[in-house]
Amino acid sequence: MEQINNIQVVPCTSSNYLKAFTVHYSQNGTKKSWDFMQTHDSVSVLIFNTTSHCFILVKQFRPAVYMCEWERMKPAHADPEGEQGGEGCATAAPEEEQEGSEEASRPHQPPASAGVTYELCAGIVDKPHLSLEEIACQEVLEECGYEIPVSKLRRITSYRSGVGVTGAKQTMFYAEVSDENRVGEGGGQPQEGELIEVVKVPLHEAMTFAYDESIPKTMGVIFSFMWFHSNMAPKYKISTNV
Amino acid sequence: MEQINNIQVVPCTSSNYLKAFTVHYSQNGTKKSWDFMQTHDSVSVLIFNTTSHCFILVKQFRPAVYMCEWERMKPAHADPEGEQGGEGCATAAPEEEQEGSEEASRPHQPPASAGVTYELCAGIVDKPHLSLEEIACQEVLEECGYEIPVSKLRRITSYRSGVGVTGAKQTMFYAEVSDENRVGEGGGQPQEGELIEVVKVPLHEAMTFAYDESIPKTMGVIFSFMWFHSNMAPKYKISTNV
Repeated sequence: MEQINNIQVVPCTSSNYLKAFTVHYSQNGTKKSWDFMQTHDSVSVLIFNTTSHCFILVKQFRPAVYMCEWERMKPAHADPEGEQGGEGCATAAPEEEQEGSEEASRPHQPPASAGVTYELCAGIVDKPHLSLEEIACQEVLEECGYEIPVSKLRRITSYRSGVGVTGAKQTMFYAEVSDENRVGEGGGQPQEGELIEVVKVPLHEAMTFAYDESIPKTMGVIFSFMWFHSNMAPKYKISTNV
Repeated sequence: MEQINNIQVVPCTSSNYLKAFTVHYSQNGTKKSWDFMQTHDSVSVLIFNTTSHCFILVKQFRPAVYMCEWERMKPAHADPEGEQGGEGCATAAPEEEQEGSEEASRPHQPPASAGVTYELCAGIVDKPHLSLEEIACQEVLEECGYEIPVSKLRRITSYRSGVGVTGAKQTMFYAEVSDENRVGEGGGQPQEGELIEVVKVPLHEAMTFAYDESIPKTMGVIFSFMWFHSNMAPKYKISTNV
């Protein structure tokens, strides 16, 4: 399991990753302003291994999720002036986290597992000369170790994510792979800081997994498993009443 | 339709809404840093009107989505030094948008409809003394005009959103309402800048709507429509093969 320690949180005044802008505009004659973040579109891939009848997911430590859980674990009475309670991620600046590593041992620090999420193989669209399909296939190879041609991808659909803040477009694909397509271990690109574990979820356990709220996951996992059950059911002879 | 003009974009140096932090930590002995945004958890509600057999959605202009589309419409050759192409939302600062209203008439400004998305009724969890269910019911009333008790809510599931940046927890509910529960027009709280249109999607058109990629929507809409078809199919005698 992951070991997470020496946690320090500081305000982020300049970032190569989070680019915030304010747009001023008139909507039906009323002047408005909105703060938003520019981000990349993304692709994700539901991978089904037809040899083992397993879905292939990725699992990784997500600092943003972990920090959200850290805030949640703070006792409500610890901050008598705070506006946030147990259910929300506090938006107040967590200045008290700036004191260094001794903070990491506070009783309310969650275990590293609180920040580990199960996700579809995915990546951002940041290579203008590649198609969405080509980028998706690169991610399948880099993250999960399967080499497949773009012709193996089936487009499921696209949608908007984070409509309040980013509004980027996400496109989801489905890919069937077999053990013969496995050419590497996957795991992402360590030089880019990726530390990804490839996990298999057996088909017959998939819907139980999807609706187990004790397993942190993205909606993409839940949706795509349900899509599979609705659309691939005849092929794989599974019940659709999930 | 919405009229959007006088668009100006400026870098956002300080925001009451976007709170960026950097977390420094050690993962298995390796020092890492990650920029993230603190945000609130949220709730969403799939509303089904049993009188008219329609889903009740909300539709609103989302500046973040609009700006994303604006970037996408820029010709790739317009910024010879840009790293971004047609598929991605550019992360380069859009300084050229700062010139004022005359910019709004540029040929590549998308129509206002490009920023309008269909979404589930939803809200952030920012009231520590209310349960998730109570907040969900408030949103159903404020945004859609239906008054229902918390006992009418069925929890569908929860999941993580924006795991790279925010990691907040979203909880989705299902609520059946009837015309008798309609006590107002909905539309959100104009004093908070909300300008929400309540829309009905007939049950028999729902899956076509869900997979029509020309209609901008969140994954919550697609997922919850599919969940309904899988879970409510026996009750409403609809095909599950969607």
